[in-house]
Amino acid sequence: MTAVVSGLILIGGACFSSAVYARNADIPAISLPGDYRDWKLISVAHEAGALNDIRAILGNDVAVAAYRNGAQTFPDGAMIVRVAWAYTPSEENNRTFGREQSFIAGEPTNIQLMIKDAEKFKATGGWGYAQFASANTPNSVKDPANQCFHCHQAVQSRDYLFTRYAR
Amino acid sequence: MTAVVSGLILIGGACFSSAVYARNADIPAISLPGDYRDWKLISVAHEAGALNDIRAILGNDVAVAAYRNGAQTFPDGAMIVRVAWAYTPSEENNRTFGREQSFIAGEPTNIQLMIKDAEKFKATGGWGYAQFASANTPNSVKDPANQCFHCHQAVQSRDYLFTRYAR
Repeated sequence: MTAVVSGLILIGGACFSSAVYARNADIPAISLPGDYRDWKLISVAHEAGALNDIRAILGNDVAVAAYRNGAQTFPDGAMIVRVAWAYTPSEENNRTFGREQSFIAGEPTNIQLMIKDAEKFKATGGWGYAQFASANTPNSVKDPANQCFHCHQAVQSRDYLFTRYAR
Repeated sequence: MTAVVSGLILIGGACFSSAVYARNADIPAISLPGDYRDWKLISVAHEAGALNDIRAILGNDVAVAAYRNGAQTFPDGAMIVRVAWAYTPSEENNRTFGREQSFIAGEPTNIQLMIKDAEKFKATGGWGYAQFASANTPNSVKDPANQCFHCHQAVQSRDYLFTRYAR
């Protein structure tokens, strides 16, 4: 388990506790949809500490409709991606405005994905979890139950989604 | 001039210097397109200090295509919106992960918009500038030359756009 993979989508930090779930011996393959960067904005966040990133959470049409409708359980086909970049002071902006106040997206870090398929991903609450070093690399999550689902159980009441829709 | 309006789109801070431009006596009306929240993500940022917000910069299809193609000058019809929310620690996330590290989008602050029309907005570099308290309120920018364009001249070489596209 790596700190980067744990706490998928919203956090990316290591879990606080360390219960170990049974490994899913046959984890369905997940690849990153080619159009993820065109998806709609769900929210934004900054993770300080070791991650030190600034991030956007985007959803495909199914996911965004579910969020906007206040769905308790997301339908199959919902996909949520977390894109993140190094949290980077903007010297240009600070110079223009005469204050040290501006932090922008620097180099990309990695991409994380959740896909809802209640049957296929039954072992992890109906969501498949994946992480990609970049858009054209394979999923690096080998143990989603322990690397991802474990922490997401803290928000089981919101269908395991940390992120709320930002209106 | 208010600190909130100045430095539209990326910054929202007051300008460092304070040159005063001629007021545009006949400023074209600008309203917020109803579908702005469906636009694609350009980048994200955090402004500390008095603003203390976390923000996303979204673009309509014309603007996003121009960014992705590395356009030097954006075509008429390009629209870029800056949505922002109070920069808010997430107790829930921090509790789950055992660290004070997570900052999320809280209450919305305001919405800013740039619209490209080289002729219509000739007085302000071809861009119209607007700010809205929320989606259904009128543009509150009365003096775009001084409230907005003045600071954006610092990035004239990038067609007055502070924000870079985050890949």
